[in-house]
Amino acid sequence: MVGYSEIGIFGSLLLASAFFPQAYRLFKTKSAKDISLYYPLILFTGSLCLTIYGYGINDLIVFMLNLYATICNLSLVLLKIYYDRFGGVASGQGKEMGLSE
Amino acid sequence: MVGYSEIGIFGSLLLASAFFPQAYRLFKTKSAKDISLYYPLILFTGSLCLTIYGYGINDLIVFMLNLYATICNLSLVLLKIYYDRFGGVASGQGKEMGLSE
Repeated sequence: MVGYSEIGIFGSLLLASAFFPQAYRLFKTKSAKDISLYYPLILFTGSLCLTIYGYGINDLIVFMLNLYATICNLSLVLLKIYYDRFGGVASGQGKEMGLSE
Repeated sequence: MVGYSEIGIFGSLLLASAFFPQAYRLFKTKSAKDISLYYPLILFTGSLCLTIYGYGINDLIVFMLNLYATICNLSLVLLKIYYDRFGGVASGQGKEMGLSE
């Protein structure tokens, strides 16, 4: 029978993989207008804190999972800034877009 | 001196609060086109698994935090579906939009 720890690991892997469809969509649409900059920014800060926490309590899984989430969320922040600023240029619309929070 | 557990709790509270700016933005723009449906959907499934895991290991914090995250992510899924389907109508554009993944 599938135990609770397998369910926990599966859940963590799902959380870790959620980043990819969103990143793929950003690449495809070259637009991040509907994403609030604060969403990945707060997620980034939160997972950074939990990475430090994992380091502090010497829990490799908590540390590694949150370090990974921190990198994914930082990437979403950068993609959001990039496509807000250059999204139009990247998809050939050729107009400079201001940063929309 | 701020300890690792305070940093951990602060990080968890940040993760828990990240939902609000994104939900607010959806209400404001009435558009969720740039958000991949799979992003909140996978986050929802992952946090649901971790809620079950928290229940299984009798850890109230893990259980409560992930139950909360599950509800937030489910709300994002529903908001995404709603604004993809009725976003135009909601903002008076009056055209039926198909569900964009």
